[in-house]
Amino acid sequence: MTTAGNVIKCKAVVAWEPQQPVVIEEIEVDPPQANEVRIKIVSTSLCHSDLYCLSKVVDKEFFPVVLGHEAAGIVESVGPGVTEFQPGDKVIPLYLPQCGECRFCKSPKTNQCSCFPSILFRTRLGSKEMALAKSRFTCNGQKLRQFMGISTFSEYTVTHQMAVAKIDSDAPLDKVCLLGCGVCTGYGAAVNTAKVEPGSTCAVFGLGAVGLAAVMGCEAAGAKRIIVVDINPDKFEKAKEFGATDFVNPNDHNKPISQVLMEMTGGGVDYSLECVGDVECMRSALESCVKGWGVSVIVGLTDMQDVATRPLQLTSGRTWTGCLFGGFKGKDAVPKMVKDYLEKKLKLDEFISHTMTMDEINDAIDLMKQGKCIRTVMSVCPE
Amino acid sequence: MTTAGNVIKCKAVVAWEPQQPVVIEEIEVDPPQANEVRIKIVSTSLCHSDLYCLSKVVDKEFFPVVLGHEAAGIVESVGPGVTEFQPGDKVIPLYLPQCGECRFCKSPKTNQCSCFPSILFRTRLGSKEMALAKSRFTCNGQKLRQFMGISTFSEYTVTHQMAVAKIDSDAPLDKVCLLGCGVCTGYGAAVNTAKVEPGSTCAVFGLGAVGLAAVMGCEAAGAKRIIVVDINPDKFEKAKEFGATDFVNPNDHNKPISQVLMEMTGGGVDYSLECVGDVECMRSALESCVKGWGVSVIVGLTDMQDVATRPLQLTSGRTWTGCLFGGFKGKDAVPKMVKDYLEKKLKLDEFISHTMTMDEINDAIDLMKQGKCIRTVMSVCPE
Repeated sequence: MTTAGNVIKCKAVVAWEPQQPVVIEEIEVDPPQANEVRIKIVSTSLCHSDLYCLSKVVDKEFFPVVLGHEAAGIVESVGPGVTEFQPGDKVIPLYLPQCGECRFCKSPKTNQCSCFPSILFRTRLGSKEMALAKSRFTCNGQKLRQFMGISTFSEYTVTHQMAVAKIDSDAPLDKVCLLGCGVCTGYGAAVNTAKVEPGSTCAVFGLGAVGLAAVMGCEAAGAKRIIVVDINPDKFEKAKEFGATDFVNPNDHNKPISQVLMEMTGGGVDYSLECVGDVECMRSALESCVKGWGVSVIVGLTDMQDVATRPLQLTSGRTWTGCLFGGFKGKDAVPKMVKDYLEKKLKLDEFISHTMTMDEINDAIDLMKQGKCIRTVMSVCPE
Repeated sequence: MTTAGNVIKCKAVVAWEPQQPVVIEEIEVDPPQANEVRIKIVSTSLCHSDLYCLSKVVDKEFFPVVLGHEAAGIVESVGPGVTEFQPGDKVIPLYLPQCGECRFCKSPKTNQCSCFPSILFRTRLGSKEMALAKSRFTCNGQKLRQFMGISTFSEYTVTHQMAVAKIDSDAPLDKVCLLGCGVCTGYGAAVNTAKVEPGSTCAVFGLGAVGLAAVMGCEAAGAKRIIVVDINPDKFEKAKEFGATDFVNPNDHNKPISQVLMEMTGGGVDYSLECVGDVECMRSALESCVKGWGVSVIVGLTDMQDVATRPLQLTSGRTWTGCLFGGFKGKDAVPKMVKDYLEKKLKLDEFISHTMTMDEINDAIDLMKQGKCIRTVMSVCPE
């Protein structure tokens, strides 16, 4: 059976409207057009950003949408002009593309390719972005939006070649799928954005997969002390596996957590990473930093409210910044991260608390809402 | 006549209470104690921070106080243990000391010596800070506070040796006094904190002396384009002398100034420097930066309100930071800045719009309130 060149009918998870359970539907996936790649998704995992969009985005324009952006798969076919990939290649789709040509891609300072105009979906459509934006998904005659240009909660997806990273053919896709978002996001925030230095003291706020990956990044960078902050102490044992040295539950204290950390460290931490996506946590994370050189990185996703502090927190020498996808340029970095995993330099298995099939996605969503999982990996298609 | 070892009776400017005219009084200045230096102030200038404290600090504890922190003078006598200075040395008092021993002084990353605990006055008194905090000024039997540990609106002042920089004996004190605060603050914010790169595009908000010095710093660092933003277009001509290339008056536009700058630059500036001390300007300055690598430095002083932005402004790769005294370690940098001025590598004369005597200080305050001066240099004692 050859599928190349034909529409593929397959299963996908459709979010028809906000704040409702998602539905498994049969959808039609168009063949890839020029510079596009059609990918058979083998494994995908659920990330907080999927939930954020499902529960927080009430813009009707956003729906119906196929969510999912953390996955690994195999190239099924390629469109005209694609030479970098061929059918059978193992790949990880990139929600943050790397066109390689824009001034952002050409700068060593950032990974924020100009073809990534909006974190939610593409509203500012230039000619190049159009290719990414135009959905290849239809369900009962209705176009479905492709989340972040990729949509991995589907047996097949189509994306632009600038949004695909080719990885080692030995890579186990049910593990390396985590490199599609969460693990790179947290790990990179520590090593690329904060640029954690050996011997330093770090604080990580929030112990989801992103936070645990940030802990792993701090440890890899040689941090001497890694203080983790979470209101769920059940997560401290896992954090220890990744290198955490000190544990703070805000519910155990009657004072601001920044003051607790100031006292624990004699003046504040060198680096803090906010992996919650809450503006009050972001403020605490900044204000937990030492004056003079403390760097606080916003990793968590939220944009519903302002984040604030007193100006003197910054004039006294703290730095507030943030990143997407851990500052990694996807095409360059993801294959290296996969290699590091294969060489046992990077943990991935330890993030996987649950495995399911894609049909069980509403159970995965419930687990995440209840804070009972780290990462749930869902099998989609067999390799 | 020898004054060493004796109390000196001299003139000083006393702020008895907030929001009132200051008063020229005869005060008594104690001899320097261990590790202290008594300085004859030759020239001093008025800085916005003096006004800020006079008009915004309503804490009764702060008054009566002798303001002034931008000055140059001559060592009159030294206390026991002082070997770095001797009578006759030309010096600039440092409101931000450099003890040389704390972890902040030992780090190349910051100038925020641990002996500078508060920007307004010393409330957190450790043993070392006590020496700085304890005032040597009395007026009619009442102790006067020493502003920022120095108080330069006085014919004589006493400060700790860690808060004094020795400068070239050829330096004209009526010019180099500007290096005691404003010029270093703006210039250093560009070269040390923002680390402006050659060929870059910068925006400077506010064209007081600090803003103009920031423009000069951007130019010295090789910026290709320097956009200045001020609601007073009279200042644009002066800004041009310092290297400004583009001029924006927010009153000429019906949209947010960040949007104006985004459009002028095709996506935002590489560096912005807020030299106003206003939280809305701080937000505009950040949001005028390009995503990916834009750096915004808060230079202006205010701490009455929160400063805020949307988290996505930071997660999209902008960096928000700030500095005091332009990130310069005073003892190391001020003598070099004086040398640069003597070698005509640095402008100072161009900042001086008015000269007066210290007796006329209320006129200088009025000029600054009306935005009619850049810097007013007041002569205090003859050399």
